[in-house]
Amino acid sequence: MDTAFELNSQYRNDILASLPKSKDFTDHLNQVSKNRAASSLKELYKYQNVPGMIVMAGGIPHPEVFPFETLSATILAPDAFPLDPPRVPKKEKSSLLSWLFSAPKPTLNISIPKWAPKPVDPTTIQLSTSLQYQAATGPPALPLFLREYVSKIYKPAYADWDVLINNGNTDGWNKIVQLLFEKGDTVLVEEWTYPSAVNAFLPYDIQSVPIKMDKEGISPEHLEKVLSEWDEKARDGRKRPKVVYTVPTGQNPTGATMEAERKKKLYDIFAKYDIIIVEDEPYYCLYTGEWTPKGSKSDKSILAQRNAEAEKKEGKEGNEAFIKALPPSYLYFDTDGRVVRLDTFSKTSAPGSRLGWFTANPLFIERLTRISEVSTQAASGFATALTVSSIQKWGFDGYIRWLRGVKATYNMRKTWICDAFQDTFHLEWDQAHVQDLFPNGSKTITCYSKQPKNKWDEKKGLNGPGLVTFTPPTAGMFVFLGVHISEHPDYVELTRKGEDATHVLVQRLWTQLADNLVLFAPGWYFDGGGEHAIGGKGYGYFRLSFSIATYEETYRAVETFAKVLDKFFKLN
Amino acid sequence: MDTAFELNSQYRNDILASLPKSKDFTDHLNQVSKNRAASSLKELYKYQNVPGMIVMAGGIPHPEVFPFETLSATILAPDAFPLDPPRVPKKEKSSLLSWLFSAPKPTLNISIPKWAPKPVDPTTIQLSTSLQYQAATGPPALPLFLREYVSKIYKPAYADWDVLINNGNTDGWNKIVQLLFEKGDTVLVEEWTYPSAVNAFLPYDIQSVPIKMDKEGISPEHLEKVLSEWDEKARDGRKRPKVVYTVPTGQNPTGATMEAERKKKLYDIFAKYDIIIVEDEPYYCLYTGEWTPKGSKSDKSILAQRNAEAEKKEGKEGNEAFIKALPPSYLYFDTDGRVVRLDTFSKTSAPGSRLGWFTANPLFIERLTRISEVSTQAASGFATALTVSSIQKWGFDGYIRWLRGVKATYNMRKTWICDAFQDTFHLEWDQAHVQDLFPNGSKTITCYSKQPKNKWDEKKGLNGPGLVTFTPPTAGMFVFLGVHISEHPDYVELTRKGEDATHVLVQRLWTQLADNLVLFAPGWYFDGGGEHAIGGKGYGYFRLSFSIATYEETYRAVETFAKVLDKFFKLN
Repeated sequence: MDTAFELNSQYRNDILASLPKSKDFTDHLNQVSKNRAASSLKELYKYQNVPGMIVMAGGIPHPEVFPFETLSATILAPDAFPLDPPRVPKKEKSSLLSWLFSAPKPTLNISIPKWAPKPVDPTTIQLSTSLQYQAATGPPALPLFLREYVSKIYKPAYADWDVLINNGNTDGWNKIVQLLFEKGDTVLVEEWTYPSAVNAFLPYDIQSVPIKMDKEGISPEHLEKVLSEWDEKARDGRKRPKVVYTVPTGQNPTGATMEAERKKKLYDIFAKYDIIIVEDEPYYCLYTGEWTPKGSKSDKSILAQRNAEAEKKEGKEGNEAFIKALPPSYLYFDTDGRVVRLDTFSKTSAPGSRLGWFTANPLFIERLTRISEVSTQAASGFATALTVSSIQKWGFDGYIRWLRGVKATYNMRKTWICDAFQDTFHLEWDQAHVQDLFPNGSKTITCYSKQPKNKWDEKKGLNGPGLVTFTPPTAGMFVFLGVHISEHPDYVELTRKGEDATHVLVQRLWTQLADNLVLFAPGWYFDGGGEHAIGGKGYGYFRLSFSIATYEETYRAVETFAKVLDKFFKLN
Repeated sequence: MDTAFELNSQYRNDILASLPKSKDFTDHLNQVSKNRAASSLKELYKYQNVPGMIVMAGGIPHPEVFPFETLSATILAPDAFPLDPPRVPKKEKSSLLSWLFSAPKPTLNISIPKWAPKPVDPTTIQLSTSLQYQAATGPPALPLFLREYVSKIYKPAYADWDVLINNGNTDGWNKIVQLLFEKGDTVLVEEWTYPSAVNAFLPYDIQSVPIKMDKEGISPEHLEKVLSEWDEKARDGRKRPKVVYTVPTGQNPTGATMEAERKKKLYDIFAKYDIIIVEDEPYYCLYTGEWTPKGSKSDKSILAQRNAEAEKKEGKEGNEAFIKALPPSYLYFDTDGRVVRLDTFSKTSAPGSRLGWFTANPLFIERLTRISEVSTQAASGFATALTVSSIQKWGFDGYIRWLRGVKATYNMRKTWICDAFQDTFHLEWDQAHVQDLFPNGSKTITCYSKQPKNKWDEKKGLNGPGLVTFTPPTAGMFVFLGVHISEHPDYVELTRKGEDATHVLVQRLWTQLADNLVLFAPGWYFDGGGEHAIGGKGYGYFRLSFSIATYEETYRAVETFAKVLDKFFKLN
């Protein structure tokens, strides 16, 4: 984090002017993308905005018959969420009723008319334009804001990048699949990965090549090994991957976050093998930092601690501290223009917006615009109008303050679940075998039962075997648990019988949990394939989302988990 | 129309129960569509809604941090637009100012809270759900409404059809391309067709096969000829088309509308050759009927005239007359389930919604859902929430009344442009060579200059040559003009010099028009290829949209066109 901060601070406007232009990546486009024609009506566009022109060339409905005359919204104020909420909520928000009757949050009102007074101002939002057919690039106000945001937050290392809106990161990744891949290609993925991303390319006979992870995500050593030792013959004639799909911050499902040094190292390897880096960053602003257990001191560096204190302040200083704390984007190292970054409003505003954006080199942006024109066209005008109007109401600094409130909220929820584990299990900070195998900067924790000692086999001076290992996440909304399935009394017998003991027992545990009203996501769903570095054989995985449950539910879930585990491992 | 009405009236609920199920069209899916896997988390979904379950399986953000607390809209009342507006507008709506100060239309207010009192009711719309991740099928209230609408308006001829929302017809057609086509396939299109639809499949090396049109669209004779005489060798090994892309109502650009008998005839040919019919119907509700010239009587049948009178009435009778007047959908004849219908809210509500829907057999609907899940996911929740809330506010009958108002508005605009031609040119209703070559039920018109006779070559007893031929459209928002380019004094000389005289002269005319502040769309943009049935060689085409211009602008455009034509043809 401190490294990232120092690197970030080197970035200056005067450097921007001297940045290189992106390389030519035409060879990376697939044949279909190369085939796409630009509109043949350029002549027409030239005349379209001539004053006094009677335009009968378009095929657009009259805004008179759009049923929406005015659109209004009550939105939360940028500072609706506290920057440093109490560790234990004062008033428990355990039900819909308690939500409804809790103290109202500060709000603002926005209103979008059908006809605005200054329709030609590029920042004007009016329904007669937003609800009309729009260019795939969306209302001009949106790219204007996004370019400012990308400049200030990501600081790309080349000059001619641009942005293009899409319908959220799932749509964004699907368009990248349409842009770059040929049937029979390969693609680098993390050993644990997001299944919807895989489902987008799998039907095209595109093979995923899993790379091992450690606590900071993709392992540079394994990556270099896979790429340098690539053997087409051994791979059924498949060529070396030309694209990597990665979730660098709060990775789904592991929660791993790549920090600056790791990213630079990986960028150099990707550049060496001419690989396009697609960084899918839904959780970027949910970079919440390390969990500090109750009753202990933070082990962050002094600089990081100072920044964390500054983050609790309102105003400019707090906003800057928030930005400093963020890990650098791959764009920050991208002197070639080989990074396609996917950002979304799903986690920072609302998923139902179906609104996100690409940041990429101008060639890719132009081809992606062509793809958008014949598929999604523009994102919904309701979504762009309401999103832009909200941001305009808040202002740029207000938007950053909003993001900080969202971050603080998820940090609070992360603290709840980690605290619940601390209160429910006996925790040991791993020193040896499991250390470094789990992601994140945080130290890895193994959980032991708090059952009375006399009911246990004694091992290592602890109450019975380690049951679960995990690393408190530093970003995102997930805790990824490894259950020590091989400690189960039936494990050996099942294995002897030739069964997949881990799978059988994980399934049994998952069902017992569900029968006790706790629903986790099974880890196998996120299996990117290959031999796993994270955890060994005999580990069973679950992904727990802490984004939705109340404080009470979070504790109830972890306590139920502990009871079910005791029973499952036959400890009582 | 009367045929359609009779056919429609045969359709009864008791017949519905005895309808056949769709055939198995698995062979029509492309390999990629066959490869798509359903979600492997069915087990999980089973538990998701168990009461009391603490769900930590999802990866969804907390609605608490959606910034939108309430969304409100002022919408027009269902009867905001008159059913029988005056032929010449009383108050000219020539500028934005006059719009702003014109009499306010009746409005209604809708408001969508973050949390509604009855969240489990399938018709409830609340922001905490609409702005959350949603199933690709959208909020349950939307398919509920769409199924009712499809049943009542289209009356499909098989039992197990279903609907699926998409992001508008461009997205819908693109998904059909992803569903059905293999590289190297062929697809049937109309000889004049919508270029964005072609741009969606062209890059995949899919070849369009144009079919000639007459005044009711696709010619059954030419279709049968092309399919029966298909010769793979002569076609570079390309196989017979398995899909047709067609715009049956108010075709873009020709304005042609296929009536019941023609559709039935075509359906039988498509079924014989096992072809999937994709009917793209953005202009379906803009089926406005024939233009009756000023000072003349309608030549509609007595039954059609009676229905037209009933259409002017408010209430049930008027609504039923509106539905009766609509041409039947291909779905009405679809006993196989081979029709994919594309409907959109773009023309009936607003294009910026990016919201439309498929009606198709259950196999296609299921595979299209898989495609949606990895690309657009659901349509924007802003769009679905506001669209559904508006329809709920209006009620089903109110929605039909709204559609009637929209239809009446476009009919008024169509009347303006046809009247402007009548007032500006000398019109002759063609009896001979051009008759039947142009689309629509209306008779074809040739326009002559109103310049003084003495400046003209005299032909056929008229003031000079016919300049322009067109058929007043019965649906949609376009007039498709054929300019008699071969009558131009330079035509022969240019041709002698080996130039493409038509192209050169059309381009010259188009530029002269634009220089005089009138912008038409050039016809070549919509050229589906092949030898054209509509109009002969030496015709130059323009598509005029009458959807946007005011009454005054419409007259100014047509008068300017007449003046430019006189100069272009060197008549003065």
